[in-house]
Amino acid sequence: MAKIKDVARIAGVGVGTVSRVINNSGPVKFETREKVLRVIEELEYVPNEIARSFKRKSSKLVGLMLPTITNPFFSELAFYIEDELYLKGYKMLLCSSQTNSDKEIEYLDMLKRNLVDGIITISYHDYYNHDKIDNPLVTIDRYISDEIPHVSADNYGGGKLATEKLIEAGCKSIAYVGGAPRYHSSVSDRKQGLIDIAKANNIPYYIFEESESENIEGSLSRPIMDESLVVKRFVREYPNVEGVLTSSDLFAAALVKELRRIGKRVPEDVQVIGFDGIQSNDYFEPQLSTIKQPVEAMGRQSVKILLGLIKGEKVPSNSVLNINYIEGETCKKASDIVDIK
Amino acid sequence: MAKIKDVARIAGVGVGTVSRVINNSGPVKFETREKVLRVIEELEYVPNEIARSFKRKSSKLVGLMLPTITNPFFSELAFYIEDELYLKGYKMLLCSSQTNSDKEIEYLDMLKRNLVDGIITISYHDYYNHDKIDNPLVTIDRYISDEIPHVSADNYGGGKLATEKLIEAGCKSIAYVGGAPRYHSSVSDRKQGLIDIAKANNIPYYIFEESESENIEGSLSRPIMDESLVVKRFVREYPNVEGVLTSSDLFAAALVKELRRIGKRVPEDVQVIGFDGIQSNDYFEPQLSTIKQPVEAMGRQSVKILLGLIKGEKVPSNSVLNINYIEGETCKKASDIVDIK
Repeated sequence: MAKIKDVARIAGVGVGTVSRVINNSGPVKFETREKVLRVIEELEYVPNEIARSFKRKSSKLVGLMLPTITNPFFSELAFYIEDELYLKGYKMLLCSSQTNSDKEIEYLDMLKRNLVDGIITISYHDYYNHDKIDNPLVTIDRYISDEIPHVSADNYGGGKLATEKLIEAGCKSIAYVGGAPRYHSSVSDRKQGLIDIAKANNIPYYIFEESESENIEGSLSRPIMDESLVVKRFVREYPNVEGVLTSSDLFAAALVKELRRIGKRVPEDVQVIGFDGIQSNDYFEPQLSTIKQPVEAMGRQSVKILLGLIKGEKVPSNSVLNINYIEGETCKKASDIVDIK
Repeated sequence: MAKIKDVARIAGVGVGTVSRVINNSGPVKFETREKVLRVIEELEYVPNEIARSFKRKSSKLVGLMLPTITNPFFSELAFYIEDELYLKGYKMLLCSSQTNSDKEIEYLDMLKRNLVDGIITISYHDYYNHDKIDNPLVTIDRYISDEIPHVSADNYGGGKLATEKLIEAGCKSIAYVGGAPRYHSSVSDRKQGLIDIAKANNIPYYIFEESESENIEGSLSRPIMDESLVVKRFVREYPNVEGVLTSSDLFAAALVKELRRIGKRVPEDVQVIGFDGIQSNDYFEPQLSTIKQPVEAMGRQSVKILLGLIKGEKVPSNSVLNINYIEGETCKKASDIVDIK
């Protein structure tokens, strides 16, 4: 790192002159001033203590790091995080890593350099040593360590509730279909909820998971995985399963489409429950039966915890928020289906 | 603005001491140093020339200002803008105004303070004097002045093409249904395309527009307007129209839903064409017939023009990019419909 002595040496002036230029505190010839400023710029010289002093100041900026903004769940979450921050006098800088780990590191470094007061992340990566982030940090859907607070929906409870609904609807065999996060994510608890309820009810169950992969080419359509390929394989390998819980609404929609394509009726032949409860379904057929994540509460809670951390308050290290079931058109009791006809 | 003299006076030391502290350039007692730094922080003192010198440096950051990220069209656009910037060695700071004009002003000021190299905006507001933005600026879908380059889809051509498709499908009367931007936006050209083609073909046409409003409460569901209310009114007031072009896919989906609710068949009774071609339709029924905006090209072109501006190159003041028609299930020729049955 350049020091004031380096600036002086290269500009061919004394340290006192550099100091006068910086502080505008005494007469310096125009040409000399310009030369000193040029050297300051070239060397990227920053007075040490000024830099440190700035760091201690509040910027009223919070960084949000998302894997992708084209997934409606993430963009809704960002909406509520921004809204809550704004209510509290903060602004949000949103960065999207496009599920690319190099980008994520670069963006986190950039956020640190831009001196945000804190960071909220949803990360699909593990390489990054989060302990090295000096800024107050809150994670969503991802446990890092006991020191870093994390916020998630009650994924386990959601998995249990969905499985109960499938069993109530009369399913004699059930499956979990979805993406397997590459690193520990509380999303996996959905699967465990299904397993526990299926076992308790002596219902045979199958787990059909596809590993999520790094997004190398930055393709928009399915940034993390291609749901349509996964459900095609599932339908081929498990043609007789009667009820399915998927790891996301996108998976549920892809599954319904594939089942219809091969001539199966939903929910008459196969009952399907999604997970997320994303907004953009509203206008489209069929309305998914789904576990709705408390996306607004998750967003606002992350902000409250982060602002607590920033103020040095004691905050909960783990916030698990309630989910609920939305009865759509893809999972119904047999009696209800008959009524409709 | 605080000067070095103010810092010295309040800290009770000489200007030379403050200068030595800032530049770490000579011996200062620990307590004195701490006191000077505290005053620097309190007064938010920044050495003048340092601040100016920083401004001249490239931050390799570009700000993107969107009205909302929960609309899939905007989030796709952001995806491609980020991707193109990253390829060119830049990072994107995304700010969402939630269609609130106060927020938009504050975010633009924040971006300027964070010394971005340039800004890309999609703005629904007019209050802001864009001439006061010193940073290189590119707008999307919005003409501000000849000095500010803007990028849009061929909205006029899209309106024409959709109208031709409705006429080809046999519609004897057509309507344009959608939101009317409060300020001049090239989105309005879609309507003009419909009018011109309808006139040229002697087909009666109707314009049913609802003014877009400011988002006061920051509600997520329909940030700019409630499409479902607008289409309900339209269907009541124009029960016999045979073909409709809507200003967006969200409008088209809402219209199809409302038509079905009142017992009309799409496309047998009413033909519907949307506008945008947003990704998230994929899994849902019906597949909309729609005019696809070249969202990838629009994103990449905005970046190319902005980086040209940053480098001081001459750039086109107006980029109009080609649209195309996607044949979905909501507009079909009568002969094609019969074939399907």
